Amino acid sequence: MPEKLRVVPLGGLGEIGKNMTAFEFGNEIIVVDAGLAFPEAEMLGVDLVIPDISFLLENRDKVRGIFLTHGHEDHIGGLPYVVRELDVPVYGTRLTLGVARAKMADQGSNAFLDARVVTVGQTVRCGAFRVEFFRVNHSAADCAGLAIHTPVGTVIHTGDFKLDQTPVDGNLTDFHRLAEFGANGVLLLLSDSTNADRPGYTPSEKLVGGTLNRIMVNAPGRVLVASFASHVPRIQQVIDAAASNGRKVGVVGRSMETVVQVANELGYLRIPQGLLVTVEELDLLPRSRVVILTTGSQGEPMSALTRIANDDHRKVRIEPGDVVLIAATPVPGNETMVTRTIDNLFRRGADVIYEPSAGVHVSGHASQEELKLMLNVVKPRFFLPVHGEYRHLVHHAHLAESVGIPSKNIFIGENGMVLELTPNEAHVTGRVTAGNVLVDGLGVGDVGTVVLRDRKQLSEDGIFIVVVALNTETAQLISGPDVISRGFIYMRESEALLEESKEKVKAALSDCGAKKVSDWSTIKSVVKDTLSRFLYERTGRRPMILPIIVEV
Amino acid sequence: MPEKLRVVPLGGLGEIGKNMTAFEFGNEIIVVDAGLAFPEAEMLGVDLVIPDISFLLENRDKVRGIFLTHGHEDHIGGLPYVVRELDVPVYGTRLTLGVARAKMADQGSNAFLDARVVTVGQTVRCGAFRVEFFRVNHSAADCAGLAIHTPVGTVIHTGDFKLDQTPVDGNLTDFHRLAEFGANGVLLLLSDSTNADRPGYTPSEKLVGGTLNRIMVNAPGRVLVASFASHVPRIQQVIDAAASNGRKVGVVGRSMETVVQVANELGYLRIPQGLLVTVEELDLLPRSRVVILTTGSQGEPMSALTRIANDDHRKVRIEPGDVVLIAATPVPGNETMVTRTIDNLFRRGADVIYEPSAGVHVSGHASQEELKLMLNVVKPRFFLPVHGEYRHLVHHAHLAESVGIPSKNIFIGENGMVLELTPNEAHVTGRVTAGNVLVDGLGVGDVGTVVLRDRKQLSEDGIFIVVVALNTETAQLISGPDVISRGFIYMRESEALLEESKEKVKAALSDCGAKKVSDWSTIKSVVKDTLSRFLYERTGRRPMILPIIVEV
Repeated sequence: MPEKLRVVPLGGLGEIGKNMTAFEFGNEIIVVDAGLAFPEAEMLGVDLVIPDISFLLENRDKVRGIFLTHGHEDHIGGLPYVVRELDVPVYGTRLTLGVARAKMADQGSNAFLDARVVTVGQTVRCGAFRVEFFRVNHSAADCAGLAIHTPVGTVIHTGDFKLDQTPVDGNLTDFHRLAEFGANGVLLLLSDSTNADRPGYTPSEKLVGGTLNRIMVNAPGRVLVASFASHVPRIQQVIDAAASNGRKVGVVGRSMETVVQVANELGYLRIPQGLLVTVEELDLLPRSRVVILTTGSQGEPMSALTRIANDDHRKVRIEPGDVVLIAATPVPGNETMVTRTIDNLFRRGADVIYEPSAGVHVSGHASQEELKLMLNVVKPRFFLPVHGEYRHLVHHAHLAESVGIPSKNIFIGENGMVLELTPNEAHVTGRVTAGNVLVDGLGVGDVGTVVLRDRKQLSEDGIFIVVVALNTETAQLISGPDVISRGFIYMRESEALLEESKEKVKAALSDCGAKKVSDWSTIKSVVKDTLSRFLYERTGRRPMILPIIVEV
Repeated sequence: MPEKLRVVPLGGLGEIGKNMTAFEFGNEIIVVDAGLAFPEAEMLGVDLVIPDISFLLENRDKVRGIFLTHGHEDHIGGLPYVVRELDVPVYGTRLTLGVARAKMADQGSNAFLDARVVTVGQTVRCGAFRVEFFRVNHSAADCAGLAIHTPVGTVIHTGDFKLDQTPVDGNLTDFHRLAEFGANGVLLLLSDSTNADRPGYTPSEKLVGGTLNRIMVNAPGRVLVASFASHVPRIQQVIDAAASNGRKVGVVGRSMETVVQVANELGYLRIPQGLLVTVEELDLLPRSRVVILTTGSQGEPMSALTRIANDDHRKVRIEPGDVVLIAATPVPGNETMVTRTIDNLFRRGADVIYEPSAGVHVSGHASQEELKLMLNVVKPRFFLPVHGEYRHLVHHAHLAESVGIPSKNIFIGENGMVLELTPNEAHVTGRVTAGNVLVDGLGVGDVGTVVLRDRKQLSEDGIFIVVVALNTETAQLISGPDVISRGFIYMRESEALLEESKEKVKAALSDCGAKKVSDWSTIKSVVKDTLSRFLYERTGRRPMILPIIVEV
């Protein structure tokens, strides 16, 4: 019996974020990407979410390497946690690994990154796998897709991509190599589904360059551009537009400073001599000769742009006549923070350009026509749409059907599923542990449903604590009840309610006494029920009620 | 000295929601609208937000009446709270008052609604004011704008409006009357700014009718349409499309049932005999002959569509082949809930049509060209853009400048400002109390910054309670310390941390003893600081720490 290839998505299916896929053949496993996701609204207090890698840890002897497609958080953000547990080489392009290293240093991670730089066009042998990196366009620089040659056939993983016909750095998605793969036969395609519900083509990044130029020509004062720090092509275009308009560029915001430095050192940015100036130097220039490049396009509370909008930035202060470009669309969940920032910028007198139709942002992901083209070029026997919410996977599956892939060869998967392939067949044969590991402060995985449920209740109605001291033997009340609440009601203005609560507790306790109830847990639950009913009746709220009995 | 007109916006400026404006002349005040807003993300546990009406309560003897423009929550939702405090007549069109009454009954409000029905074209005398209702189009039926004739001149308040040239009910926004007002001279225009940042014209509601028809022709199975219950024209179009396609309509969801009933009784819906059927009857029909009209276009957790998407609805269950139309765009803040519902519907096998480009929804608010037309028709001397976030007010002000209103005659206001007008002049002369009153359960205004700050901390890192019994005289430890946490860490898996915490507290207490500290508040703060430092160091989290000392 020939051996089979197993493909196991550990993240990125049914979600935008924490992309990670394992490929197993015989005694060897390779992993593509190790991303993080940002917490959903109900994950109160959680800082970030990483994939559950139990499957990899249970098979730690098999894991041969991690391959990174590009340097975005949703593809590399889980790396510090993963390499702490798995001591394997990490392969990626030079910029991707540079960014990964900078992020780990930033987080104070002391895990060792066994980084192996790969150039697009190169192939890495890793056990039974030969992994070839090929160029793709995306909203970052030095991005790669992977052709994974295995004993049962070739698997193409696009990574995040678009087909930009006029990329800023001139490096096209490698159609030629993709066509060769297609001609030679591809067993399975994993392709980026982010924009699978968008008709047509995603516009070229160059479109934004034109807009930037137009705005810089016309703006009477300073032009502030807020973008993702990781978007090197966008940064390049801001630099180019500033240079051709005789403006100098100041970089504001720590992550933007880091990326400009790393990308510049590694040769991914072309910055004319003297163009970059310090923020202090900007103040000496006429306002019409100034561009400020900054972060905060998502309205992040601590970001430079948010501080500027709140007139709370140490060095940059908006004046009427300044133009601010929000060169990004809000990531789902950030919409209200972004609009608040925009409103505050208007309040300071800035003109803010933020509408999607203004041409200050284009997506980094392929739309429907590009996705169909990818399918037609690669001509895979089997297809696994990845990187998307469930609806995106469904749309992508429909696109694949529309170009002639039989629906039985298309797999709308979920994290943890095991897709087993031979040269002629593919079946879902089982599932492994997969899911979310929540990171909160220093804790990785120690916040679960119980803690989140409590946080939810606390966040909505607060806590109401009642303290009584009871005689250990007789259960007689010795001191109290005292009540303390937090997040429930403003205590100073609610004395009558608090007094009544105490009376209710006293009555409940004396009732327990009369009935000779002396078991603490019964007494506690009587107190809890009494208070719960009373407080709901009076306030319509259900705070967490915590009876504390001190035995003396 | 002639008397002045004072215009005092109490809500709706710098926000979408809780619209309310007071007009004062001499000893008389009238109020336009009494809306609510939905809580922002940081208003944890808050149910809704109403305007602070201190200004009206301080002048309660002057208030003559409340005038409603239409029956949307952001214009009438505060009514139950306002009429509880202010016993004045409430004027509105028949449907608006019908909806207001139904809402109050729904909420169990026992406040009396002194409802006075006004037909468009009619004028109500109210003290020094003559208030004329005129027709406007919007995403509800029987909507009105108001011409407020005062001794110093005429004020036009558009309410929410668009200029639909082919409205579903055939009732155009009353251009003729607006032109007359303009010809006779208008002192001040207050106009809807919601879409002031959208170029062009808002498409006609009829566009959606075409889409509905096309989808119903082609859908092999049932068609579910999720819309706002208040959107009577949309409901009419669903009914029309169903009728012309030989489909029956079942109404699912309490608020949709209420509106269909009220609007039907009052004659605002034309429903062919036999078209409406019960949900039970739907099950007896072929799936291709069924339309289900429902709520939940915002992904509201308890709504019918959300339950259906979760396969958790008592009567409706998605089957492959069903088509679901989300005939609304997400209200800011609801985006993630909406996309989750869409994903879940896809999971059940439905085809979901939700893209803004699909033509299943159009806005109910005027875009830039319509807003300029309104300004040109009404030709106001002064202009106060209302109903919008700050950026919308700024855009609307720019539009007004572009049609020739001098910028000194345009007021970008904020809630609480007092705009004083004579026939020739307008000045902001001061401000009154205005702002948010938070409603949480039965409490109106009893949740403020302290409670919200506590809820925030509790929601992020939970609470850590330490209980000790100390001798009243000597401050010697008698029992404890005991520790309890909620929402901080899973206690059962953190015994070591809890034990160490107790040791830290013991050490701190014995330190206090050695230093002869016996004042409770000092002891508490020492315990708190000790624990706070220790827990942050070990977990990176900052739970609320509550030391409880029981004296015995």
